[in-house]
Amino acid sequence: MEKLTLIKVGGKIVEEDASLQRLLDDFAALEGRKVLVHGGGRSATRLAERLGIESRMVNGRRITDAETLRVVTMVYGGLVNKNIVAGLQARGVNALGLTGADMDVIRSAKRPVQDIDYGFVGDVKRVDASLLGDLIGKGVVPVMAPLTHDGEGRLLNTNADTIAGETAKALAALFDVTLVYCFEKKGVLRNELDEDSVIPAMDEADFRRLVAEGVIQGGMIPKLENAFEALKAGVGEVVITLASAIGSPGGTRIRIC
Amino acid sequence: MEKLTLIKVGGKIVEEDASLQRLLDDFAALEGRKVLVHGGGRSATRLAERLGIESRMVNGRRITDAETLRVVTMVYGGLVNKNIVAGLQARGVNALGLTGADMDVIRSAKRPVQDIDYGFVGDVKRVDASLLGDLIGKGVVPVMAPLTHDGEGRLLNTNADTIAGETAKALAALFDVTLVYCFEKKGVLRNELDEDSVIPAMDEADFRRLVAEGVIQGGMIPKLENAFEALKAGVGEVVITLASAIGSPGGTRIRIC
Repeated sequence: MEKLTLIKVGGKIVEEDASLQRLLDDFAALEGRKVLVHGGGRSATRLAERLGIESRMVNGRRITDAETLRVVTMVYGGLVNKNIVAGLQARGVNALGLTGADMDVIRSAKRPVQDIDYGFVGDVKRVDASLLGDLIGKGVVPVMAPLTHDGEGRLLNTNADTIAGETAKALAALFDVTLVYCFEKKGVLRNELDEDSVIPAMDEADFRRLVAEGVIQGGMIPKLENAFEALKAGVGEVVITLASAIGSPGGTRIRIC
Repeated sequence: MEKLTLIKVGGKIVEEDASLQRLLDDFAALEGRKVLVHGGGRSATRLAERLGIESRMVNGRRITDAETLRVVTMVYGGLVNKNIVAGLQARGVNALGLTGADMDVIRSAKRPVQDIDYGFVGDVKRVDASLLGDLIGKGVVPVMAPLTHDGEGRLLNTNADTIAGETAKALAALFDVTLVYCFEKKGVLRNELDEDSVIPAMDEADFRRLVAEGVIQGGMIPKLENAFEALKAGVGEVVITLASAIGSPGGTRIRIC
């Protein structure tokens, strides 16, 4: 199977020009098949502010009312996505910007209201990687915005980590996939205060132990749970690293056992 | 050669929900291979207004400074394009939203400053229809926003009529293309004041005569010149009609002779 690297980068990296240009250079230099999944939350918050729309976040997730959905559609699907695509084209990478609605790649369902009404937020139901796989085989590099659709005409705001994980799983049927989550730290740290205390490798037993010991906590727990789920679904390797370390051997490498 | 219909619709139709839903129904019902090219100027003007950015138009073209380029990238590439894509997916049409930067489909050059500095506006240099043709052959329906790129990382605001014409010409090497310009009138009128005075068919000799007689004037002249240019470049037929008449035999049919 051919190797494919799927890289997920957060909003911060793609929203500041210097870090974006560096990311695009590093991503363009990566050998082999590749996919980029991006966020864009800070730009969405900034545009919402200028439009007088309040940004409400619960557990790090944006409450997405109809107006906010318009904002994220403009920012994720338009501004951030198309500027990345143009920047990659300038570097000789044949990028194609996508939301989950395009070619029906990712279909989701509006999150049911339980304690919190997240609004127009989608939980991924299925990824169809067939046309995506064809295009990748022809040298096209998908650049995916954190938006999906419900198949009934509604776009839905969708977590970029989830899009990366689910797309990696679907592509694992066609490629030997490495899923890279870029992060503001060098990897999973043994000590939050020591930037150099990166845990170089971790299997699920290590993970459970480190959670029990309180070494791993907060937002890192669901991220790692997703990583193990991706591995169980056929993804070859999951790496958590700095965006500026794409293509270098650092970070935390997650494996099943 | 397989038939392909390329339909260009202006901003007004895709920006009002009722007319958009009707357009999507009609477009979805069209048989055979198809492509949609859309505008979005009114939404761009509206967003610019809300952001306190002045919209300046010269000869019907938007002066596109850096801030305006951000606005049109959000509105054309994000809001309008992705809502059309989701709406078509809901109707069983496997739509794929594109700007000219995606898959390097349309490359343009920033318009040189002569009397007027249009800013970040692109004149189309070439259309690469090879991957587009492959995808269309697989049942994908491209939905094209009026944005292109210069190959150096810069998106450029580009006239939707031009994108439609140039894409139709490039696809004419692969398909028997009918290019349909949707319009706010039933076709080219013999008498501006009589909505029913549609000229059903026109060749280039008719066109020159009608211009000389003053029957055809203003913005219709460059539109028709583009139509004849497309026909000379291999497009099978050009039709100018109402958006609500897509798929019906009305309108003005332009032919070479």
